[in-house]
Amino acid sequence: MRHGSTLLADLILMATSQPRTALNGDSMAVEALLQDVFGIIVDEAIRKGTSASEKVCEWKEPEELRQLLDLELQSQGESQEQILERCRTVIHYSVKTGHPRFFNQLFSGLDPHALAGRIITESLNTSPYTYEIAPVFVLMEEEVLKKLRALVGWNSGDGVFCPGGSISNMYALNLARYQRYPDCKQSGLRALPPLALFTSKECHYSVSKGAAFLGLGTDSVRVVKADERGKMDPEDLERQISLAEAEGSVPFLVSATSGTTVLGAFDPLDAIADLCQRHGLWFHVDAAWGGSVLLSRTHRHLLDGIQRADSVAWNPHKLLGAGLQCSALLLRDTSNLLRRCHGSQASYLFQQDKFYDVALDTGDKVVQCGRHVDCLKLWLMWKAQGERGLEQRIDQAFVLSRYLVEEIKKREGFELVMEPEFVNVCFWFVPPSLRGRKESPDYTERLSQVAPVLKERMVKKGSMMIGYQPHGTRANFFRMVVANPTLTRADIDFLLCELERLGQDL
Amino acid sequence: MRHGSTLLADLILMATSQPRTALNGDSMAVEALLQDVFGIIVDEAIRKGTSASEKVCEWKEPEELRQLLDLELQSQGESQEQILERCRTVIHYSVKTGHPRFFNQLFSGLDPHALAGRIITESLNTSPYTYEIAPVFVLMEEEVLKKLRALVGWNSGDGVFCPGGSISNMYALNLARYQRYPDCKQSGLRALPPLALFTSKECHYSVSKGAAFLGLGTDSVRVVKADERGKMDPEDLERQISLAEAEGSVPFLVSATSGTTVLGAFDPLDAIADLCQRHGLWFHVDAAWGGSVLLSRTHRHLLDGIQRADSVAWNPHKLLGAGLQCSALLLRDTSNLLRRCHGSQASYLFQQDKFYDVALDTGDKVVQCGRHVDCLKLWLMWKAQGERGLEQRIDQAFVLSRYLVEEIKKREGFELVMEPEFVNVCFWFVPPSLRGRKESPDYTERLSQVAPVLKERMVKKGSMMIGYQPHGTRANFFRMVVANPTLTRADIDFLLCELERLGQDL
Repeated sequence: MRHGSTLLADLILMATSQPRTALNGDSMAVEALLQDVFGIIVDEAIRKGTSASEKVCEWKEPEELRQLLDLELQSQGESQEQILERCRTVIHYSVKTGHPRFFNQLFSGLDPHALAGRIITESLNTSPYTYEIAPVFVLMEEEVLKKLRALVGWNSGDGVFCPGGSISNMYALNLARYQRYPDCKQSGLRALPPLALFTSKECHYSVSKGAAFLGLGTDSVRVVKADERGKMDPEDLERQISLAEAEGSVPFLVSATSGTTVLGAFDPLDAIADLCQRHGLWFHVDAAWGGSVLLSRTHRHLLDGIQRADSVAWNPHKLLGAGLQCSALLLRDTSNLLRRCHGSQASYLFQQDKFYDVALDTGDKVVQCGRHVDCLKLWLMWKAQGERGLEQRIDQAFVLSRYLVEEIKKREGFELVMEPEFVNVCFWFVPPSLRGRKESPDYTERLSQVAPVLKERMVKKGSMMIGYQPHGTRANFFRMVVANPTLTRADIDFLLCELERLGQDL
Repeated sequence: MRHGSTLLADLILMATSQPRTALNGDSMAVEALLQDVFGIIVDEAIRKGTSASEKVCEWKEPEELRQLLDLELQSQGESQEQILERCRTVIHYSVKTGHPRFFNQLFSGLDPHALAGRIITESLNTSPYTYEIAPVFVLMEEEVLKKLRALVGWNSGDGVFCPGGSISNMYALNLARYQRYPDCKQSGLRALPPLALFTSKECHYSVSKGAAFLGLGTDSVRVVKADERGKMDPEDLERQISLAEAEGSVPFLVSATSGTTVLGAFDPLDAIADLCQRHGLWFHVDAAWGGSVLLSRTHRHLLDGIQRADSVAWNPHKLLGAGLQCSALLLRDTSNLLRRCHGSQASYLFQQDKFYDVALDTGDKVVQCGRHVDCLKLWLMWKAQGERGLEQRIDQAFVLSRYLVEEIKKREGFELVMEPEFVNVCFWFVPPSLRGRKESPDYTERLSQVAPVLKERMVKKGSMMIGYQPHGTRANFFRMVVANPTLTRADIDFLLCELERLGQDL
C-alpha cells in the first residue's frame, strides 16, 4: 500500500485537475464510443441476429468459451479498440433470441420499437419510485397499467410492474394474506392458523417458490388435478378446499393459470371464480404467458372470467415481445392495498412535505426500493403498432400454430401430443427406427432419448433452438412456441424439415 | 366486433402473405429507425443530458405533463415521425440523472462503457437461467461475482445478481432461516419458534419490508441503537440479543450496514462479527451503498471485518455507476445453499438429460424464473477502467466530499450535520433570517421549512437536484451525495452558490 499522505496529495491534485480517465467528461469521445458500439449492435445483433441465413447460436463448450471471452477482470483498463472487440465477441457468442429460428422460450423476436424504448430507458437510468426523479415514467406506468386493466375488464384498480412473473405471483400471495390478516405484516405468520392455497399441477413453479419464500412453506400449496389438456379441474378444486378445511387449514387463495408453460392450457376461470366467491378466496390469475391473448377479439374468450379475478399477473415481455423484463401485476383493489401491504414510509425518500402530490410517489407500493423502468418499451411499441397491430400479431401467431398442427398431421414421423388451444404446439418427432413400433416395450424409453440428441445437434449446428421436456408419463417431446411476430410459414416448414434432417439416422 | 369467419379468413390470408406491419421483417427499416432513435438519445440524453449548461430537469405539474406526453394508448399505430417525436419528448421531460448537478440519489452519472453494456444487453434480450440460452452471461456472471467476492476477501463462495438491494437483503434473510431450519421451505414458519433478527435504526427500510414479505413480520426486527454518527452500537446489539432470547425468540441473523442511506455510516463489522460468532447468528452486511469502497485501498478499512460475513449485498449501480439495476448478493457458502434453498427443479427448463454440464443452469438459484442480465454493464466498465480506474473514482469522490466539507465550514449560512466518513455530506443551509437565531423557540420548525422550499425552487428552475430529509430530532437537512465520477470542484462550488442564490430571501 502507498503511503497515506502522499496518496492524499495525489488525490487532491487529481480532484483539482481534469478527471484523468479519457472518456469522463469528454462528450465527443463518449459519443464516438457509443456510435461505434451502436454500429456493432446493428451489425451483429440486429442484422445478423435476425437473419435466417445466419446461425441462431454459435455453440462453444464452457471451457472454450471462457477462453474466447477472456473474462477475467484486471487492474488496468483496456484500449477503446479492445473494448469494441469485446462488444463484438459478446454478441457473437450470445444466443440470438430475435432470430426467426429461436423457438426455445416463451419470448422471441426483436420488436424495434420496444428495443428503442429499452435503449432510451437505459440512457435515462432512473427509478420510478418518486415523481421527482421519474415524472414521465410514473405517469406512463399509471397509463399503461390502466390500459392493461381495461383489457382485463376493469375500469379502476391498481397495479405495478414487477421484475418478472414469479415476483408478480408472490405479490398476489402476499396481498391476499395481508387482506385477510392485516396483522401479519407486523406479527408474522406464527400468529395465524395454517393457510392453504390452491393451484393446478400444471401451474408455474413460481407458486411453490413463492410459498416457500413468503414463509408459508410449499406444503401450503394444495395441488389440484388438471384434465388431459392441462386445465384445472374445478371439481377437484372444490374437493381440495374441503379437504384443507377438514385438516384445519384456512384456504385463502386460488391461483389459476391462463396459458400454462408447457401445454399452453387455459384454466376455466368462471368456474374457479364461482368457487372463490362461494368460499371467500382471493382469486389470482397467473396470465404471465396467456394474458396477451386479451388483445385478440377472436381468442380472448380463452380468458373468459378473468374480470372476476382479484389479481392478474401478465408478462408483455412474452407474447407481445416487449423485452425482458416487462411483467405487470394488476389488481382490482381500489383501497390502496398495495401501499398498505408493502409501504414503510421511508422519510428520506417519501417526504410528506414535498411541493407536489406525494400520491405520485409510487415507490412505497413495492417491496423493492430502486426499481427498473419497465413501462416505456411497452408504451412505445403500443404507440407504434396500435392495439390493432398488436392484435394482428396475436391472431397471426394462432394462425401459424394451426398451420404447424396441420403440417404435423400430414408428415410421417411427427405426432401431436394434443390439439393445442394456444400457440404452444407440443409434438414428438419419431425417428425412422421407431416408427410403427409403439407397442415395443422400450419405445417410450427410446423416444425419450430422441429430443435431447436432436437438441444437441441443432444447437451445435446453430440451425435452430426449440425446447423439450418430459411431462407426467409422457416421454420427452418438443414444445414449439409461435411468438416471434416475424415468423412465416417458411420458418414453420424449416422447423419440420430440419428435425427430419437432424433425425434421419436415428 | 367483426364476424368471426370473415376475420379468420383475413387472418389466414395475412399469415400466408408477408407480415403487414411496415417494420417487421424489413431489416433496413428497422436499422433506420434505430439509427434515428440513437441519434436522438445521443443528442438529448447524452449531449444535453450531461451538460452543465442544460437543465437537470424540465419540471411540469403532473396534469400538464400528462397532456404534453399524450400518454393514451390507441387502437391505431402512429407514423415513424410521430414515434421519433415521442422519443424526443420522453427524454426531454425526464430527469437527467447523468447530469453533473444531479445529486438527488445514491446513483448519478452516466458511464459510457456501462451504458454500452446495457444497450447490448437489451439488444440480446435473454435470461441467464440456462447456459443454453445465455452462455456468455452465465459465465460472465460467475466471473464478476468471483471478483466481487475476492474484494470482500473470499476465494470461494456463491452469489447471484438480484433486482435491487432490497431483494438481495431478503435473500439473506431467507437463506439464513433456511440454513437454520431447512424444513421451513416445506412446512413454513408456523412450525418454528419465533425468530428475531437485528439491525440498527439507521438500516435501510428493506430489512423491515423483507421481514414482512417473508412472513416473519416486522416485529421480528429488533432495532439496535446507533451512535451519534449512525453506527450500530455493539453493546446494545448484545443487549437486544439477550432480551430477545429472554422473551422466547430465537435470534438468527444480524444485518449490519456498510454505508447507511442518510448519514453514510459504516457499522463496526468486526465487533458485530464477534457477537454473531459467539451467538451462532448469520452475519449479513448490507453494503448496497458502501460496498464499492472495497475497491479503494485507501478507504476499504471502513469495511474491515466484512470478510467474516455470511452474506453481503452490494449494488454496483450506486457508487460505481453501473446503471440500474446491478445488485449482487454474495455468499461465503460453498454448500450450494442458494440452490437448495430456492430450487424447484422445473423439468421444462432444467432438464437433467442435457448435453452440457447442467450445473451451469443457474436459474434455480433464484426465486425468479426469467431474470434480467445485470453482469455485462459492470464487466464492460471494469474491463475499460480496470480496477485501478474504478479505485480512482472512489478515491476522488472522497476527496471531493472533503472539499465540500471544508467549503461548508468556510461559508456563512452553512452548517454540517456531522463530519462525514463517506461521500454523504449532510448539512443545513441556514437562510439569512435564521442566522444567529438558534436559541429562538421556533428555530427548528422554521429551519425544517427551508429545504422543501429550496428544493421546489431548484427543481422548477432546473438548476440542480439534491435530496433532503428530517432525521430523528434533526430538522430537514440536505444530503449531498458525491458519486458522479465527472464531478469537479466547480460543481461543488455551484451547489453551494446556488443554494445561497435560491435562499437569499428566506
